[in-house]
Amino acid sequence: MSVTILHILYIVAITAEAMTAALSAGRRSMDWVGVCLLGAVTALGGGSGRDVLLGHYPLIWVANPGYLLLPAAAALATIAIARVMHRLRRLFLFLDAVGLVAFTVLGCNVAMEMGLPVVVVIVAGMITGCLGGVLRDILCNEIPLLFRSELYASVSVVTGALYVAGLRLGLPHDAVMFAAMALGLAMRLLALRFNWNMPKFVYTQELH
Amino acid sequence: MSVTILHILYIVAITAEAMTAALSAGRRSMDWVGVCLLGAVTALGGGSGRDVLLGHYPLIWVANPGYLLLPAAAALATIAIARVMHRLRRLFLFLDAVGLVAFTVLGCNVAMEMGLPVVVVIVAGMITGCLGGVLRDILCNEIPLLFRSELYASVSVVTGALYVAGLRLGLPHDAVMFAAMALGLAMRLLALRFNWNMPKFVYTQELH
Amino acid sequence: MSVTILHILYIVAITAEAMTAALSAGRRSMDWVGVCLLGAVTALGGGSGRDVLLGHYPLIWVANPGYLLLPAAAALATIAIARVMHRLRRLFLFLDAVGLVAFTVLGCNVAMEMGLPVVVVIVAGMITGCLGGVLRDILCNEIPLLFRSELYASVSVVTGALYVAGLRLGLPHDAVMFAAMALGLAMRLLALRFNWNMPKFVYTQELH
Repeated sequence: MSVTILHILYIVAITAEAMTAALSAGRRSMDWVGVCLLGAVTALGGGSGRDVLLGHYPLIWVANPGYLLLPAAAALATIAIARVMHRLRRLFLFLDAVGLVAFTVLGCNVAMEMGLPVVVVIVAGMITGCLGGVLRDILCNEIPLLFRSELYASVSVVTGALYVAGLRLGLPHDAVMFAAMALGLAMRLLALRFNWNMPKFVYTQELH
Repeated sequence: MSVTILHILYIVAITAEAMTAALSAGRRSMDWVGVCLLGAVTALGGGSGRDVLLGHYPLIWVANPGYLLLPAAAALATIAIARVMHRLRRLFLFLDAVGLVAFTVLGCNVAMEMGLPVVVVIVAGMITGCLGGVLRDILCNEIPLLFRSELYASVSVVTGALYVAGLRLGLPHDAVMFAAMALGLAMRLLALRFNWNMPKFVYTQELH
Repeated sequence: MSVTILHILYIVAITAEAMTAALSAGRRSMDWVGVCLLGAVTALGGGSGRDVLLGHYPLIWVANPGYLLLPAAAALATIAIARVMHRLRRLFLFLDAVGLVAFTVLGCNVAMEMGLPVVVVIVAGMITGCLGGVLRDILCNEIPLLFRSELYASVSVVTGALYVAGLRLGLPHDAVMFAAMALGLAMRLLALRFNWNMPKFVYTQELH
């Protein structure tokens, strides 16, 4: 059962990420091809980066090319519904947060199946959850949001750590997965609601 | 025969891409080492990215290090002939377009030899044709041109789709290859000549 | 013996690179998580990029996750000592230069053990030494320093070439390694001291 649910969450996650990317593309007046490309890179970049770094071949979209077409289509659809997008703002941020925790759990799973050490498992979850957004911001010529605000990476690390810890304690997989995702999701939504931030490091001198 | 011609086209393509990269480097006043590096990354980045994503090792420049030296040398030579470059503008854009369609066909070939699905074959061609220029623009701190204008990715997708479709129909390889490249080339040159663009997606609201 | 020394130099190098990255992060007012991430990416990005391009799996931080925690901790520690950082400026630039030549030699070693051609060995050393800083600059939304100034890539190429040439001549490994690193280090420190630069290529015309 959990496999089916993870699969559905994955589809929700790549769709939500592609749609956030399309809005970023629209803010930079990219053309329709650029919107599709940015959507696909953002949605699939996290998992692809993780697989390349771990040497976990074939990548999911190479084995199942439908996963290439879905985010491209979602990005295109975003152009059509952009006018009503601000009314869907809350749903949208919610789905993006679901995507973050779902990607994290999926990334941890891949690393665990490869028998990797626990720190690498948590990092694999974080890369899966966060790298897509980093690539989106680099391609939009911005300092990645991840490095500056909003407990995004932290939510991913907490979700991954809870998931791994629960499984280590021998608790049943599905219960652990849902608990970890629920707590991560709550943390992300509270951070958005109350504008929680990590302390910043401000350094003004030049080294060179 | 077609192997020899593809090989010649590959050499034309990496040379042309390295030279466009050198001009980009010059517009940002990079030093000579930066010109060489940007030339090599741009010329070899598309094929390298494709091979890393598909797990297709060894990379071409690892097996044949001459392909590292050629774009570096072409980039350096560009410094010498920069003064007359604007007179060669048309030749240059023509060679760049040849490079795009040649890279596309070569990338499709690699994916087909790996027995990958048709969508992945076309995407592999597009990555091979376009990723080098994306890396060049990122390293020059710009939003990639690919996302904003000029039917570049579209030309690659059309070339790849024609190539794959022709082979599926059982037509002879060389005829299909030349027809696909000729049509892609014509589309690219017409897009440049008549300033064809894809429609843009403009979105001005903030989601967060 | 040389293995132990290389190991110590590697630890010095990833620590120094993480600390330079933390200062870059601080100049852009990143948050603490961003500081850790940028530190880890900068310290480990060179070796990871080399291994991905060469297909040399598993990556060092996947096999030894301690190498993930060290640069993250070093980056965090930099926040604490940032006030006195300018007094340590010389020590810091010295350690960064040690890191560059140590990374270069380590990268050459990996490629030589894979039996790769000599040009690829030198390029592998340069990627290991330089890519981390390029990723740091891209993530900080800047044109990589590597492409613009300061004999950084050149130092790496000279160090790698001396190392490979010495071994080809049949000289003892440790002597060659120290000589190559010492000469590379001297070249880097002299370049910093006397502000040596490569000539720049300035091109002002648009091609398109």
